[in-house]
Amino acid sequence: MANSLGQLFRITTWGESHGGGVGVVVDGCPPRIKLSEADIQPDLDRRRPGQSSIVTPRKESDTVQILSGTFEGKTLGTPISMWVKNTDQRSEAYNEMAEKFRPSHADYTYQAKYGFRAWPGGGRTSARETIGRVAAGAIAKKILREKFGVEVLAYVSQVQHIKTDVDVNTVQFDDIESNIVRCPDQVIAQKMIRLIEKMRGEGNSVGGIVGCVARGVPAGWGEPVFDRLEADLAKAMLSLPATKGFEIGSGFAGTLMTGLEHNDAFRMKGGKVHTTTNLSGGIQGGISNGEPIYFRVAFKPVATVMHEQDTVSTKLKNTTLKGRGRHDPCVLPRAVPMVEAMTALVLLDHALRQKAQCG
Amino acid sequence: MANSLGQLFRITTWGESHGGGVGVVVDGCPPRIKLSEADIQPDLDRRRPGQSSIVTPRKESDTVQILSGTFEGKTLGTPISMWVKNTDQRSEAYNEMAEKFRPSHADYTYQAKYGFRAWPGGGRTSARETIGRVAAGAIAKKILREKFGVEVLAYVSQVQHIKTDVDVNTVQFDDIESNIVRCPDQVIAQKMIRLIEKMRGEGNSVGGIVGCVARGVPAGWGEPVFDRLEADLAKAMLSLPATKGFEIGSGFAGTLMTGLEHNDAFRMKGGKVHTTTNLSGGIQGGISNGEPIYFRVAFKPVATVMHEQDTVSTKLKNTTLKGRGRHDPCVLPRAVPMVEAMTALVLLDHALRQKAQCG
Amino acid sequence: MANSLGQLFRITTWGESHGGGVGVVVDGCPPRIKLSEADIQPDLDRRRPGQSSIVTPRKESDTVQILSGTFEGKTLGTPISMWVKNTDQRSEAYNEMAEKFRPSHADYTYQAKYGFRAWPGGGRTSARETIGRVAAGAIAKKILREKFGVEVLAYVSQVQHIKTDVDVNTVQFDDIESNIVRCPDQVIAQKMIRLIEKMRGEGNSVGGIVGCVARGVPAGWGEPVFDRLEADLAKAMLSLPATKGFEIGSGFAGTLMTGLEHNDAFRMKGGKVHTTTNLSGGIQGGISNGEPIYFRVAFKPVATVMHEQDTVSTKLKNTTLKGRGRHDPCVLPRAVPMVEAMTALVLLDHALRQKAQCG
Amino acid sequence: MANSLGQLFRITTWGESHGGGVGVVVDGCPPRIKLSEADIQPDLDRRRPGQSSIVTPRKESDTVQILSGTFEGKTLGTPISMWVKNTDQRSEAYNEMAEKFRPSHADYTYQAKYGFRAWPGGGRTSARETIGRVAAGAIAKKILREKFGVEVLAYVSQVQHIKTDVDVNTVQFDDIESNIVRCPDQVIAQKMIRLIEKMRGEGNSVGGIVGCVARGVPAGWGEPVFDRLEADLAKAMLSLPATKGFEIGSGFAGTLMTGLEHNDAFRMKGGKVHTTTNLSGGIQGGISNGEPIYFRVAFKPVATVMHEQDTVSTKLKNTTLKGRGRHDPCVLPRAVPMVEAMTALVLLDHALRQKAQCG
Repeated sequence: MANSLGQLFRITTWGESHGGGVGVVVDGCPPRIKLSEADIQPDLDRRRPGQSSIVTPRKESDTVQILSGTFEGKTLGTPISMWVKNTDQRSEAYNEMAEKFRPSHADYTYQAKYGFRAWPGGGRTSARETIGRVAAGAIAKKILREKFGVEVLAYVSQVQHIKTDVDVNTVQFDDIESNIVRCPDQVIAQKMIRLIEKMRGEGNSVGGIVGCVARGVPAGWGEPVFDRLEADLAKAMLSLPATKGFEIGSGFAGTLMTGLEHNDAFRMKGGKVHTTTNLSGGIQGGISNGEPIYFRVAFKPVATVMHEQDTVSTKLKNTTLKGRGRHDPCVLPRAVPMVEAMTALVLLDHALRQKAQCG
Repeated sequence: MANSLGQLFRITTWGESHGGGVGVVVDGCPPRIKLSEADIQPDLDRRRPGQSSIVTPRKESDTVQILSGTFEGKTLGTPISMWVKNTDQRSEAYNEMAEKFRPSHADYTYQAKYGFRAWPGGGRTSARETIGRVAAGAIAKKILREKFGVEVLAYVSQVQHIKTDVDVNTVQFDDIESNIVRCPDQVIAQKMIRLIEKMRGEGNSVGGIVGCVARGVPAGWGEPVFDRLEADLAKAMLSLPATKGFEIGSGFAGTLMTGLEHNDAFRMKGGKVHTTTNLSGGIQGGISNGEPIYFRVAFKPVATVMHEQDTVSTKLKNTTLKGRGRHDPCVLPRAVPMVEAMTALVLLDHALRQKAQCG
Repeated sequence: MANSLGQLFRITTWGESHGGGVGVVVDGCPPRIKLSEADIQPDLDRRRPGQSSIVTPRKESDTVQILSGTFEGKTLGTPISMWVKNTDQRSEAYNEMAEKFRPSHADYTYQAKYGFRAWPGGGRTSARETIGRVAAGAIAKKILREKFGVEVLAYVSQVQHIKTDVDVNTVQFDDIESNIVRCPDQVIAQKMIRLIEKMRGEGNSVGGIVGCVARGVPAGWGEPVFDRLEADLAKAMLSLPATKGFEIGSGFAGTLMTGLEHNDAFRMKGGKVHTTTNLSGGIQGGISNGEPIYFRVAFKPVATVMHEQDTVSTKLKNTTLKGRGRHDPCVLPRAVPMVEAMTALVLLDHALRQKAQCG
Repeated sequence: MANSLGQLFRITTWGESHGGGVGVVVDGCPPRIKLSEADIQPDLDRRRPGQSSIVTPRKESDTVQILSGTFEGKTLGTPISMWVKNTDQRSEAYNEMAEKFRPSHADYTYQAKYGFRAWPGGGRTSARETIGRVAAGAIAKKILREKFGVEVLAYVSQVQHIKTDVDVNTVQFDDIESNIVRCPDQVIAQKMIRLIEKMRGEGNSVGGIVGCVARGVPAGWGEPVFDRLEADLAKAMLSLPATKGFEIGSGFAGTLMTGLEHNDAFRMKGGKVHTTTNLSGGIQGGISNGEPIYFRVAFKPVATVMHEQDTVSTKLKNTTLKGRGRHDPCVLPRAVPMVEAMTALVLLDHALRQKAQCG
């Protein structure tokens, strides 16, 4: 279904920018895992608007509440329902969004699909929808870390033309989190921040690339054919708002190499099968091979800009629309916890599938 | 499940390079569609090895048979079972593949996952698995064309460093099929062919990019959140063997633009809402907007090369392995019908979902 | 997944007797349906404890709140999240339920499955879980009624040995609701009520049979093979707490007839194909035939009785346990809205599936 | 999907009475299980027409072939495709079935649903469809037996008015198979056979009840809420042709008892939790409790009888139709392996789900 993801660790998100709140139901969580709101809130804070000078200034506290699925601080194996109340709902007596389709937003396509749409705040297309994903992902990350020894790290590797190379074997969480743009290269991070601040000043926006690595995944996760691990990762990433591309391992650059150059040779190392290079990105034939899994996700520049743009009205007349109010010049810093969450959800689901069939 | 794709037009593929054959079951096909093997065989022929001088010379006739789901030349609405017999099974008294893991193939990961693998011909990882996809995709393409007026075209736009720009609004099937590399630019096609032939001579291989466009998709297909149309397309493409990346619309290049540059302005045209540019790639918020849907898929160079390479044995000793026998220097020409098939399967599934909820 | 039901109109319930509340997420609801809490609350009131002298006296207001999926009083096509807060949580300083498994409850099996259980109020096994089903079912009933002209009615036809025949072609909602046991036969209803009151006085309990009819279902809903309409109804009914059996049309009694006696002859009536008898129960080959769909569901007597019974402790010692406190002598009156809800959920799901494939 | 069953051990059946054959794809089978056609053929032979004097005399050899999913006699973990060729297709130059709807068959409902139907042999509604189920079920039974120590036995306990009580704790396969009606009570079996032979002589038919027991299921299989073990069993049974009812444990008779009488007391026995009675039927709260799981399935009398009956034509005129040719006076003996197969499929699926979440 459109609003559910996963076969065995399955999440269903709900909620719009208007209405009572946003949330998620997690079905299939293993029992007896220690869990409280304190495990989840930190990732929601990393996702939250208003956390720094380079993201949207909207003030939302985004305090998560676990409504079900735990008892005496541990998971029961029953559905975990979590939600965040909506608090920042301004009464908008008149709003142009009700009468005009914002360019490169989903206003028009929702109207075309459903014949009806919730215009305040973008409704279901609001980035608030990702709260449920990040909350569920925090649980998945915890289980991956504690039960499987898997670490998932995302980071900003490029903002428009400013980029850095990240060593996926060594990058650390603290380096990523030590600056507000979440780029582990501290020098480049400052350049990125300056660019984003410039964009804010101009009422414009930029996109870029979020990289992600999962270390510690054992060989054997993933499925042949349709549910290849990279296929499920690609879907998970392209399901995030504003994404335009996904590449794993050598990615698009790998198309420039020959087979001889591209192949990852196997060698024994410490009694285990190992590849001397990792252009495969940790996955071969849809199944993890024990090397770090790494990939990159392209995010387009945020569509809301503070400039007059051509558009059409809901009455199908040509008109113009100028963005107003809160302005998010770059989604990347807040996308980092989203990419981590989606990665963790995919990996944990495949870990459980592996256990079911081959465990 | 690992071997099924789609919610409403659902396919399940089966089969290995050894054994009785390969096939597919299509569940959910609308009734009363005219259908016979003649609708399916042409795409299988485009996928077939040995069709030209630049693909693997294996001789397989790949003749499809419909076993169920039709009556008097029309679909019944019941499952359509199709298969192709395996005929090219050489008895291999001794085969190094049984005792060594081929680099950048899935031999090792299958062994790690299942504790067992079918080494002759690669088993389930053989490209023969895609026969079922292409057969099912041929049905989906036919329904899209006849019932929804949607045309799906894939083509080779890049072979290693040799590339061309393809106008997704105007590219035609006949131009694509007029050369053996399936590139609509006839001049560039010849260069590609020469490069591939050179690679064959060197026992090496190259990858590249397959582009695809779907024209005629109405506004409103696709789902919010997890089953965004581009997310399902990304998954479908990354589920194909040898793929390393997917990008839609502006893709990775779009990360270099500002929001002002990237936004697609809406204008009325012929009484319909239209975008003056199409950097979105025909999808906004996960839902089609009526513009052409186009995307690009990165294929790595084929892993089998005729050179000695480092690897490990199934007994976990370092060793070397040299590819022998049939050699496929470039998968791209045969990938074209695969990309079309996967695209059609995703689109038709969403067409039916749209009808169910909003029709 | 364990906590979801339906392919296209899909519900996911969550919540325990302890914790924040219980709720449901409805995914796949058609857009532009008028919907507010007032459409849902009446069925929750029919399900509520404490509504009459013959059900459990627990006082719960069970006030539903719609958190998402609507705008300006209409459905958006996005997930509808509904919940009811938990309010009746007594602090139980010491509770035997923590240390002993209640006979014929699920305490032991949950412990065996999950290695952990929420003992207060029965956790996820509490009848409160059905709140989400009834809330979602109220939406399904409304859509069936307004968009498809289908009416779903359930009723109590038997309490232990006291039973009545109900004419499924003519039974009316008002007759069912005119007494607290929800039996459309007013004379028999009084006998049932007296029996239940006697059981309450004795600290004992009784079961019985809930019948259900769906009128107005057109021919063509339901699927061949595994998702036959009666198969999905059987599953839905057996998923309700305390159910032990399901029979459709002639049911178990039909096994005593010969083929000649049992067959429903076809005759034309008012220009439509009609059966002169309806031993099939409105479904043939898994697909509705246009006649009323009717079936019966067996409910066992409630397991909690106010008597000392043999059991074992969580430390695996033989012991005894006596039910205390609130006592529900008969679940049937409250099961009526549950059966209606489950029926409506199955029917609407199949209505949408029919539209998708054959519409 | 309509033609698939199971979450983790998932089967998809295909095929009609006309066309190339009937078959099944099994997805999710654990790897490294010894498997050949010899494991499957015996159950197909028990299902086969023409096996004795009391079933339909149609001569079908029903020889199964495994097309994929095994290598060197063991499962690979990849999809297992199995099929049986259609051989008994008589050319029927003129057939009344093309022009008239058979009473209490699915001819009319298929026509109403799909606007088209395969009339020869009943198409997809033919009992041949169950070949795929029985073949897949044979694999599930083998895995349950060898990997989990679970034994599944079905038997005929009632033919019309002739019935016997079967002790589910002690009934043995050899007793069931020692007569052609598959009733473990040899005296009653003879009476059943005589009744069925009488029905054959009269061109009439009878139904009855198939009982089933699963012994050795550990406590903890099954899921709360919608996928309760008894709910999935009920669905599986009601998905079989000609079924009209399902009851587990005390079933409908349990509605006549009080709670005090009905509760199963827990006692320790051999260090394990045990119930002194088993009115629950081995399942409590949807989860197995370690006692034998037993249930009963009602089968209506076969609809095809050799008598003139009222019906309507495909041109919607009143007419009559008389059954001709091969006549199956009682489906029960052949239903026994079908009930076993469906039971095994449900149990194994839940065994794998239990392993995934709680293993």
